[in-house]
Amino acid sequence: MAGVAAHFKCENFQRGGAFKIRGASNFIFSIPSTQAARGVVAYSSGNHAQAVAIAAAFLGIPATLVMPWDAPRSKIEATRAHGATIVSYDRHKDSREAIGKKIASETGATLVPPYDHPRIIAGQGTAALELFEDLPEIDALIAPVGGGGLLAGCAIAAKGLNPRLRIFGAEPEIANDTYLSLQAGHRVEIPPTNTIADGLRSPQPGEITFPILQRFAEAVLLVSEEEIKSTVKFLLSRLKILVEPSGAVAAAAVLHHKLPGDIRSIGVILSGGNMDLELLAQW
Amino acid sequence: MAGVAAHFKCENFQRGGAFKIRGASNFIFSIPSTQAARGVVAYSSGNHAQAVAIAAAFLGIPATLVMPWDAPRSKIEATRAHGATIVSYDRHKDSREAIGKKIASETGATLVPPYDHPRIIAGQGTAALELFEDLPEIDALIAPVGGGGLLAGCAIAAKGLNPRLRIFGAEPEIANDTYLSLQAGHRVEIPPTNTIADGLRSPQPGEITFPILQRFAEAVLLVSEEEIKSTVKFLLSRLKILVEPSGAVAAAAVLHHKLPGDIRSIGVILSGGNMDLELLAQW
Repeated sequence: MAGVAAHFKCENFQRGGAFKIRGASNFIFSIPSTQAARGVVAYSSGNHAQAVAIAAAFLGIPATLVMPWDAPRSKIEATRAHGATIVSYDRHKDSREAIGKKIASETGATLVPPYDHPRIIAGQGTAALELFEDLPEIDALIAPVGGGGLLAGCAIAAKGLNPRLRIFGAEPEIANDTYLSLQAGHRVEIPPTNTIADGLRSPQPGEITFPILQRFAEAVLLVSEEEIKSTVKFLLSRLKILVEPSGAVAAAAVLHHKLPGDIRSIGVILSGGNMDLELLAQW
Repeated sequence: MAGVAAHFKCENFQRGGAFKIRGASNFIFSIPSTQAARGVVAYSSGNHAQAVAIAAAFLGIPATLVMPWDAPRSKIEATRAHGATIVSYDRHKDSREAIGKKIASETGATLVPPYDHPRIIAGQGTAALELFEDLPEIDALIAPVGGGGLLAGCAIAAKGLNPRLRIFGAEPEIANDTYLSLQAGHRVEIPPTNTIADGLRSPQPGEITFPILQRFAEAVLLVSEEEIKSTVKFLLSRLKILVEPSGAVAAAAVLHHKLPGDIRSIGVILSGGNMDLELLAQW
């Protein structure tokens, strides 16, 4: 159907249901122990929050998560279940960065950035490392782009192993900040968006991730909301796996023929599987 | 949650979405070629039908499938998509065996039995062989029981490799024909049932499968319709995999603590994943 051999890296089966545990644990386990004891804080629409909660629980240190009140209920509940404290905010009014920094300065907790940090990027890149252990012969790699941590880390790992490997990102049409930034040659900020790919709503690429994507990504491919939805349903009915909308964006680009025609074999990162079953039922 | 280490054999990821391809291909590929050219015919609520259609298409021979008109739509469509001819019947009025035999005698097609044949049973048993290659240390095995082909084949394979391994079946409370038959010491027939586990609606165990189950199965554990439903939802939301109701019956028995308390590690066969998304959405 895709016209290409598509090999899926199933991060929906990852601990915490998404790739985020890779970066969060790499970052948190690197904090010096006396500082780590004061805890960690993070802001996230969900999967990063859950990952931080899991990594903090593993070390036995407190975690505070700043989450939008309209984040998927499954993600809020899962984060709380790992023992973290949840602080809610309105993503159309409040600055989650400001709330996170205030908590960090008041408690001495370490802020765990969602994507724009070398240790986060390095952690996420292990998804590509594992993919290449299994499939050294693929000629391209595609991953969803929110803040760009996953794609930046995967691109560094992939290009380090095979400089000729072609790297693609995928974004929702209505959350195309990295697409626009690559066109413009500098970071562009877009207004808040309600894309169903709730993990990809970051308004602009990161300061650190963007130059990496500029250097390594051949293109960012755009998909419509309808294409994301139909891909989630396709992956469920045909592959029998649950992938959340954000996690299905790269697969949507491949299934809907957005790739250049000369690619034969591609590694596709299905980045997460944490989806409200109520929303799925509506679809 | 289960109080036991549960290792899942994911036959929902199998070709055709269920374990049935194992027995169907073992049977069909063994038909002498001049006879095979006249085609195959089978009656099935769905997964066996799809498996027969796939195996026949592989050989390039015609396949006719006798399916209840109220079988899950996804199963009927998938069977037709493999190039098979579908003949519908009413499972409360008609005899699918009679319809299947009539077609076989008229066309010279070979009838592919759904479970009660040594080659079918042997094929299904390869699910247990593979499970033991991965996990030689488990102390028990559990599989759903419809006609008994899967459990009989798996029990032969498992006991052959490790005679001390404990074997369990799982059935819906309202489709407990094998449970009743084991209690009675002979095959008992139950009235037609509407269990949501549509693949386990066979009214009695097979002539060939039943003595195998009598010899090897320690017990058949029963689960309610609600327990099956909640297990399908649990597997979807937590393991991120789609398992159909019939396929989730063994997992339901494990998750709802129906096993003897001294079992520590069990192989659980998730026998299929072909489920109407419309029905899932209603749940």
